[in-house]
Amino acid sequence: MDQPVRFDMGSELWLLLEKLATFTEGTEATGGVTRLLYTQPWKEAQAFLAETMTEAGLDVRFDKVGNLFGRLQGSNPDVPVILTGSHIDTVRNGGKLDGAYGIMGGIAALKYLKETHGTPIHTLEVVSFCEEEGSRFPIAYWGSGNVTGLFDPHSGQELLDVEGTSLQSAMEASGFGLRGQPDCKRGDLGAFVELHIEQGVILERMAKQIGIVEAIVGQRRYSVSLRGEANHAGTTPMNMRSDAMACAAEMIVRLELLAARAAALVATVGRIQAAPNIPNVIPGTVEFTLDIRHDNEGTLSWFCDYLFQEYEDIANRRGLGLAITPWLATTPVPMDRSLAEQIEQVCGKLSLSHRRMFSGAGHDAQLFSPICPTAMIFVPSKAGISHSPDEYSSPEQLSDGVSVLASLLYEMAYEEQAT
Amino acid sequence: MDQPVRFDMGSELWLLLEKLATFTEGTEATGGVTRLLYTQPWKEAQAFLAETMTEAGLDVRFDKVGNLFGRLQGSNPDVPVILTGSHIDTVRNGGKLDGAYGIMGGIAALKYLKETHGTPIHTLEVVSFCEEEGSRFPIAYWGSGNVTGLFDPHSGQELLDVEGTSLQSAMEASGFGLRGQPDCKRGDLGAFVELHIEQGVILERMAKQIGIVEAIVGQRRYSVSLRGEANHAGTTPMNMRSDAMACAAEMIVRLELLAARAAALVATVGRIQAAPNIPNVIPGTVEFTLDIRHDNEGTLSWFCDYLFQEYEDIANRRGLGLAITPWLATTPVPMDRSLAEQIEQVCGKLSLSHRRMFSGAGHDAQLFSPICPTAMIFVPSKAGISHSPDEYSSPEQLSDGVSVLASLLYEMAYEEQAT
Repeated sequence: MDQPVRFDMGSELWLLLEKLATFTEGTEATGGVTRLLYTQPWKEAQAFLAETMTEAGLDVRFDKVGNLFGRLQGSNPDVPVILTGSHIDTVRNGGKLDGAYGIMGGIAALKYLKETHGTPIHTLEVVSFCEEEGSRFPIAYWGSGNVTGLFDPHSGQELLDVEGTSLQSAMEASGFGLRGQPDCKRGDLGAFVELHIEQGVILERMAKQIGIVEAIVGQRRYSVSLRGEANHAGTTPMNMRSDAMACAAEMIVRLELLAARAAALVATVGRIQAAPNIPNVIPGTVEFTLDIRHDNEGTLSWFCDYLFQEYEDIANRRGLGLAITPWLATTPVPMDRSLAEQIEQVCGKLSLSHRRMFSGAGHDAQLFSPICPTAMIFVPSKAGISHSPDEYSSPEQLSDGVSVLASLLYEMAYEEQAT
Repeated sequence: MDQPVRFDMGSELWLLLEKLATFTEGTEATGGVTRLLYTQPWKEAQAFLAETMTEAGLDVRFDKVGNLFGRLQGSNPDVPVILTGSHIDTVRNGGKLDGAYGIMGGIAALKYLKETHGTPIHTLEVVSFCEEEGSRFPIAYWGSGNVTGLFDPHSGQELLDVEGTSLQSAMEASGFGLRGQPDCKRGDLGAFVELHIEQGVILERMAKQIGIVEAIVGQRRYSVSLRGEANHAGTTPMNMRSDAMACAAEMIVRLELLAARAAALVATVGRIQAAPNIPNVIPGTVEFTLDIRHDNEGTLSWFCDYLFQEYEDIANRRGLGLAITPWLATTPVPMDRSLAEQIEQVCGKLSLSHRRMFSGAGHDAQLFSPICPTAMIFVPSKAGISHSPDEYSSPEQLSDGVSVLASLLYEMAYEEQAT
């Protein structure tokens, strides 16, 4: 391959993704996909993927927790494996592309490489991780976490779904987690590359075809609880109020202002609850959530410290009680710099417009970053919609992402690496 | 009565109010009172009041809708009747004083006047209005509205409670609304004076014993509906959002700021609802209520027009859809100026500290203002709490209000009026 090639395999990929979307709980009237870990639709989807991998000429195997691998054996057994893929599970009533695209795109890339270039030097594998979303059990990244050794595959006894079934027993019922099944943790990986839809609006609004992820943001989530005085809306003068709603509004406005000043930081109040929540009563209490994300841990810490100092000042000035409770904190995860540069060059060779960016959402890739060079390739999402039946990227956009992935994997696995 | 007298009848009044509070639906664990129109506790309460009026030496009668009157006949049949009183119904789980105090205080005043001064020139009456709160049927001021002729006593066929019972049939089942019963509408009234707890914090915070109402505020209520775009909290940069929550917060802050500038205006956002109301999703829609009150109709109109122009600007700047739906509008009701001055003088003579003020809540008095000189006397409410089992005014505070009422009624009914 002297010149990288831009495929036109959008329609073939689309048909496979449509077929994969039929493995869903019930028949969602909305056209959404609900495929939760270790359920019947999940089993059938993994079986369909195994079949698709076999047809693509890959050697197929499952590991102990149900991660599915398709392997294209390389000629040199002494060099590490290059892995691509994403997750097969979905949120409830999710879309056809989140996760699924990275698997099906990976299969398409490996199929193309095998058919066009034969045996690579490095072994190439595509993985369908069993779980990433945390939709059924109170744990996320169960698939990649087991591959990278973050999780113990036997730690699912205490993790219960809403019906009281443990992860361990659900795993066993679907044929996994059994004695003698191959271990999950891999020590042979040289790189991980994840192809994914953006799930955001940036590429679409900036009219770019490919997003190259520099880092996956760190997240902080908090509940902010304000305690004022519920009083009569008519008989309490403005200067005699301890209005929890007015206080919350001032805090939300302040959050937005500060976030706009901190480059690339996002901050959201997604949930609010006032009490008693009656039109003619001044709210005595208001509780709202904060979701704050940035790619730099120092900036995240600085921002939250500064914000909460302001929140204390606001609450004190208004005479309200304030409690801020943290309930989630993840640190930012950098992607590999030289892989990102290589993707950038590939995009140039393929004449695909591109943009460095952060991932504002979590991904399997963040589990691999500590153990091997890791990269993520994004394609545009229509209107940024995801986790919804309306999730959409065009066949051409999906195809472009696979072209980039295949070209990158070619360079990584088929070309002699300068050492 | 050369000098007005300040009674000490707090403990007697308190016992009667405690007894009246026992006529309630169920036995509220909270100590609250639930006495809805035409229910068994309501009937028993009215019967107890009739008995109390009789013991006070008053002639007792009910009108067609169940308003109860106690009459102290005057010597001159050609001069109009002077009426005092309030309502016997409550909100659900309300307090012992709202309404009840004005009736029991009126009985106490008339009893005192009869015992001390005998027959007045003007006939004095105390009324226990059957209904004011609108707690059972979708109508408020059913009692005073029938006395003043605003309502037709036979118009209750279509008004249903939550169980589907019509006001008309509930009225008949409790022995009212029947043929031959005396009409409600009065043409013989010369004045109406209502004694009431403040239900607000002003008197307590200002350390005043008596409030003299200059006007009952007009009210406007609206629903404000914002339509933005629900999007991923992590993948949507701050400058690409149509965040309905941030927009609502800016509007609420603006409301508070404008209200603080408009003297004596109160404005409240009591209820808010965001959707989807999930921590990691930017709210696509937010709906909140506005409750805006002032004693001047022009100020109310100006304020709302100005506010809504700003709301349009804010929504436009942020690219959100805005709908403002009005659902309640009442005009301010002035109380009689010369009666207010007379009350002020009475307070002076009784050495009671006092303050002119507005009523931020609606009252029966507002129905009388268009047909005869009308006044309201307030006593302090502890922490401004009302419509709650925690509603409280001390026996001494309640007694002071009755002293003012009795002195005023003495001047109005016993002294020859200059004409």
